[in-house]
Amino acid sequence: MAEALRLAHQAASEDEVPVGAVVVHQGKVVGRGYNRRESDQDPLGHAELMAIREAARSLGSWRLMDCVLVVTLEPCPMCLSAAQQARVSQVVFGANDPKGGALSLGYRVHEDPRTNHRFRVELEENAECSQVLRDFFKKKRAAGPV
Amino acid sequence: MAEALRLAHQAASEDEVPVGAVVVHQGKVVGRGYNRRESDQDPLGHAELMAIREAARSLGSWRLMDCVLVVTLEPCPMCLSAAQQARVSQVVFGANDPKGGALSLGYRVHEDPRTNHRFRVELEENAECSQVLRDFFKKKRAAGPV
Repeated sequence: MAEALRLAHQAASEDEVPVGAVVVHQGKVVGRGYNRRESDQDPLGHAELMAIREAARSLGSWRLMDCVLVVTLEPCPMCLSAAQQARVSQVVFGANDPKGGALSLGYRVHEDPRTNHRFRVELEENAECSQVLRDFFKKKRAAGPV
Repeated sequence: MAEALRLAHQAASEDEVPVGAVVVHQGKVVGRGYNRRESDQDPLGHAELMAIREAARSLGSWRLMDCVLVVTLEPCPMCLSAAQQARVSQVVFGANDPKGGALSLGYRVHEDPRTNHRFRVELEENAECSQVLRDFFKKKRAAGPV
């Protein structure tokens, strides 16, 4: 989670909503990502998708077997479903996202018995993961409307 | 849909499950994609994601306002949620996917009042969209296990 947090701070420094993600395989980080939606003008520029894509490239396979996706914020439905498509074995996130998080909204694809891959998704609460977001939006508000 | 179908056939010719997608803006195709999961070993290599990414690049914006995503097969939860992230105004698909489709599985993010973007998703049944899939799997079965 330390590396994911470093990536979240990197996002903030580029004026992006600070979310960072890594994919870990056998104790090693094989994929990294941070939110770049505005910089890249890419609707798919979420931290998780970037980390998943990089991990698949590193491992040479679209099946991220025995991989854990670690992300600072609860994944949105797109990213949780992407983790399922990628067959990750676990997702760990550091802070809840009551407005946009897949679990918070009730889209629990990861435990749907009708799908062909299920996995655990766990909150490992981390104060810094929410703090980096609070700081970012506080600064935004102080700067006033753009 | 004719262009999406052409892309589905392209996928089949590359030994990929034949699904094709386009993004249409003001009557013009601005993004194209076909399933390339195996060829690229990319878990995010679905037709819809590729078409969405290309459309964002073409239009220079992550917001695909007034864009319609046309896809030969019912989108999976990842792709339907991606269409929502991209703010498309409509999704049209040519064939149901009872096992993997977001609507078939009940993941109706596109009409969830708690999300910040809603849009229509419609089936425009097209016999060729399902036929290309049936032909592909029939050929696969005839070829026997790999």
